[in-house]
Amino acid sequence: MRNDRFLRALRRQPVDRTPVWIMRQAGRYLPEYRATRQRAGNFLNLCKTPELACEVTLQPLARYALDAAIVFSDILTIPDAMGLGLSLEEGVGPRFEHPVRSRREIEQLPLPDSETELGYVMDAIRLIKGELDDRLPLIGFSGSPWTLASYMVEGRSGSDFKLIKQLAYGAPDDCSLLLKKLSAAIIEYLKAQIAAGVDAIMLFDTWGGILTTPAYETCSLGPMTEIIRGLGDHEVPIILFTKGGALWLEKIATSGCQGVGLDWTVSLEEARHRVGDKVALQGNLDPAVLLTDPKTIQREVRRVLDDFGSGSGHIFNLGHGITPDVPPEHLGVLIDTIGDYQPSPAPSRG
Amino acid sequence: MRNDRFLRALRRQPVDRTPVWIMRQAGRYLPEYRATRQRAGNFLNLCKTPELACEVTLQPLARYALDAAIVFSDILTIPDAMGLGLSLEEGVGPRFEHPVRSRREIEQLPLPDSETELGYVMDAIRLIKGELDDRLPLIGFSGSPWTLASYMVEGRSGSDFKLIKQLAYGAPDDCSLLLKKLSAAIIEYLKAQIAAGVDAIMLFDTWGGILTTPAYETCSLGPMTEIIRGLGDHEVPIILFTKGGALWLEKIATSGCQGVGLDWTVSLEEARHRVGDKVALQGNLDPAVLLTDPKTIQREVRRVLDDFGSGSGHIFNLGHGITPDVPPEHLGVLIDTIGDYQPSPAPSRG
Repeated sequence: MRNDRFLRALRRQPVDRTPVWIMRQAGRYLPEYRATRQRAGNFLNLCKTPELACEVTLQPLARYALDAAIVFSDILTIPDAMGLGLSLEEGVGPRFEHPVRSRREIEQLPLPDSETELGYVMDAIRLIKGELDDRLPLIGFSGSPWTLASYMVEGRSGSDFKLIKQLAYGAPDDCSLLLKKLSAAIIEYLKAQIAAGVDAIMLFDTWGGILTTPAYETCSLGPMTEIIRGLGDHEVPIILFTKGGALWLEKIATSGCQGVGLDWTVSLEEARHRVGDKVALQGNLDPAVLLTDPKTIQREVRRVLDDFGSGSGHIFNLGHGITPDVPPEHLGVLIDTIGDYQPSPAPSRG
Repeated sequence: MRNDRFLRALRRQPVDRTPVWIMRQAGRYLPEYRATRQRAGNFLNLCKTPELACEVTLQPLARYALDAAIVFSDILTIPDAMGLGLSLEEGVGPRFEHPVRSRREIEQLPLPDSETELGYVMDAIRLIKGELDDRLPLIGFSGSPWTLASYMVEGRSGSDFKLIKQLAYGAPDDCSLLLKKLSAAIIEYLKAQIAAGVDAIMLFDTWGGILTTPAYETCSLGPMTEIIRGLGDHEVPIILFTKGGALWLEKIATSGCQGVGLDWTVSLEEARHRVGDKVALQGNLDPAVLLTDPKTIQREVRRVLDDFGSGSGHIFNLGHGITPDVPPEHLGVLIDTIGDYQPSPAPSRG
């Protein structure tokens, strides 16, 4: 790998500068992405057409000095392949035509085959790997079992999570069965991604943060730990990102993952203090900073870098996905600030 | 005060059982509330008609063995009195006709007079105090400066907080001026509530949890600490509740408040371990538990009580407001479970 900063930082090895990639770096803030998406017709077609998924994956790499690519896809490909009828309309968010509501519906969920029903993801990975030609590492990903379960039971976003919580609190055995089936499907899916060539794996646990501490351990972290164990023989590093999970950092860091993604609420200094050298840390600029101005962006990017301090094990990223209203040149300011960064001689850090 | 459990627990004095009140206990889940609201025409009229506000404040006390009343009002009364044109439509959430967007608009915000523009709140407090006749304590409240600023700048809920964050990151001096003006208005407002008779104060910091750690300290906790200092001579205990603020518990506990409200994400055992005996803790059942069944409600209520363990300083509450779809008898199960509770002999807890 010609640029291995990302993989080295994930192993907490020395790097010449902090590596950076951006959640949703292939996204609507880029005019070239919007053009390709228009050609695809809609978001789901874009995910399901490997040539176009490859094209948009590479777009941000042509603009910015990024240190990793991430395969263009969606976290809801597995429930879609299970036959739930996914639609992803702009401004509405994901919806399932057939949400999962009963024990019977959970029992009947099929285990999708990763090389047929989800073959379009593997085809995209193989195309992207060919195009990258070992210039940069490629990240594969999946939603966490809890996050997939939340969408599958609620059937749509913005629903206050009442149905999935009723399942988790009121029918814990049914919830556990659903999570087990999803963990098994995710393990197969990620094994196929690794076989197709991804160099690292990220688990997006978008909704773990809505849980109580014991429910987080049972419903979110437990199944993710099972996935990490299930991938144990594959020597691909795994990053686990629970949005709103800063409260549980110590537990996340002992899940067997190599990296922990952080949203912007926790300072990297505190996070590092709490997890020590167990894992690398990825994050954590507030995406809203990219809506301000170059001077503010520079100041806040430096603050994140200062916060981590010296030493290895930091991968710069936002604390959540980049939003469609960010001017592309603002992301350029972020990337340049990381390239130009000289650690400040702060005696209290490091 | 004939029932002083709530005030005693807030001072961490021994009580015969854990006191309980429920955020939004006078709310849409109660048919008698819906009837009064219908008579009032809309929510804002209900807030602004002291006789009706008094009536709904007392309604849950007639049904349940609650240990405190909270004056029926809204957190957005201050910006409304500042002339922003508040509307509160069901299903839409709060909206301001005249959001605050520029330095000039911030500078021109008037300081509302608590006995005239906000006199309806004081009138309601005096009526309720008369009706309660020292049976139970009455809680007064305000939104936090940051929470009010968020609504005032965004102009509506569900807006991703992009505008208020642009102000906080990009124009920190303007943001600071807005927060200072709001802190001053809130101090006057709460002094008037204390003069009218409230026995305790709660600060609702609904949106502090969306901030980075340094921004939380500057924009949310700092102004709240200023308010607590501003009320210092008044011997009324103050509860501070930052939703999503479990990360910052130690800092919140040293703000000068007597009680800290907790959402459901953090366990009371951990919270107690982290803040020691500095403050009382209020919370923290997930409101979604009330949508399940009596057995699950009993189990989860006992879990919260077990989590706190023995000793004084716990006020039972939900981790957020009760939702309109809760069957009223489910809240009865919660209250009865607290009344019947016998601490389990768990050797690992204190």
